[in-house]
Amino acid sequence: MNELIIWTYDWVPNGPRGFVRDLRLRWACEEAGLPYAVRTVPFDGRETNHLAHQPFGQVPYLKDGELELFESGAGLLHLARKSEKLMPRDQAGEAETLQWTIAALNSIEMVSVPWWFLKMCGDANNQLTGWMSSRFDHMERVLGGQEWLAAGRFTIADLLMADVLRVPDVRAFGHRPATEAYVTRVTDRASFKKAQADQIAHFEAGDRKRAAG
Amino acid sequence: MNELIIWTYDWVPNGPRGFVRDLRLRWACEEAGLPYAVRTVPFDGRETNHLAHQPFGQVPYLKDGELELFESGAGLLHLARKSEKLMPRDQAGEAETLQWTIAALNSIEMVSVPWWFLKMCGDANNQLTGWMSSRFDHMERVLGGQEWLAAGRFTIADLLMADVLRVPDVRAFGHRPATEAYVTRVTDRASFKKAQADQIAHFEAGDRKRAAG
Repeated sequence: MNELIIWTYDWVPNGPRGFVRDLRLRWACEEAGLPYAVRTVPFDGRETNHLAHQPFGQVPYLKDGELELFESGAGLLHLARKSEKLMPRDQAGEAETLQWTIAALNSIEMVSVPWWFLKMCGDANNQLTGWMSSRFDHMERVLGGQEWLAAGRFTIADLLMADVLRVPDVRAFGHRPATEAYVTRVTDRASFKKAQADQIAHFEAGDRKRAAG
Repeated sequence: MNELIIWTYDWVPNGPRGFVRDLRLRWACEEAGLPYAVRTVPFDGRETNHLAHQPFGQVPYLKDGELELFESGAGLLHLARKSEKLMPRDQAGEAETLQWTIAALNSIEMVSVPWWFLKMCGDANNQLTGWMSSRFDHMERVLGGQEWLAAGRFTIADLLMADVLRVPDVRAFGHRPATEAYVTRVTDRASFKKAQADQIAHFEAGDRKRAAG
């Protein structure tokens, strides 16, 4: 098997540590037992330095032998086809995993990230709040009736949805009990904790390199 | 082969006609020559009527035999596995199609839809404008250097990205020439024109049914 390589920044400020999206790919590899290495591009100059690999200057991107993919959601769907631990192999289970993975990206994160961005700009009661509230009410109804989003078991759809919902401002939005229990359940997994700890340690090592450099 | 069924609303107001996302699935089926039927759920009461099929009360959702999927992006990726016309079969071509499909949903639409929403709320110069501008500059650079997003040919990534970019307010944002030429090139395809005309005719028929009812 090709070694998987997850590319991320060499360093980020304290705020995003534990939330940079390379965590999604680390977490998936940990769940599936897929060996991987982490390599870095400089955070400084990210606007132009690595556009040939990630056209928006972001991370992560994933290398799998000759293949290279940007977009964490694409990386998750790619990894999911390598291991049944990330997605069932039957058509119905795969379809459910796919629809909820896309829902996390395009129905929830499409509202929650811009809402969070406006809140960070100082506008906590912004015009996306009603839309966000409606989407979260729907998620609370869904999560009140089932433990996992797809196929009655953990999949990358849960990994991604929980990662979207665990952002502190987002998580505190509305205090919906089924959603809160879900985020707790998914992020209690040992693979999440290892991926998060490894990411934080990686950026702390970046602190030391910058201090030495 | 199972008949594919694309579910949409029975009627929408004039504004969104030609833009409701069932068009993405109609377009893909037209490109691939996949037979499909269109069925409807009521627009009135959509907040609660069909949540068992689409948990956010939206459309479309796609039925393929025993399988049912919501999220237009998931429907496109599902259809793409049925026809090489929508996505190449080699690993590299598939990975490129996947990454750009997710980029349309999570890097472009995640900014452009909330930006458009704030503009519709009366705030054209809103706090997402700088972020939108940066994303569009990156797309302009990419589209200045290549005709198609993935694998040197039309794929569902182009279908989706062009559909995201053709929204009038979004399309007028910045007047970037390579992006404009790209949107024109992709939406000049006969399959897009048929899908759009069929959707508009479908909602016009809905007008007549409402007037008769």
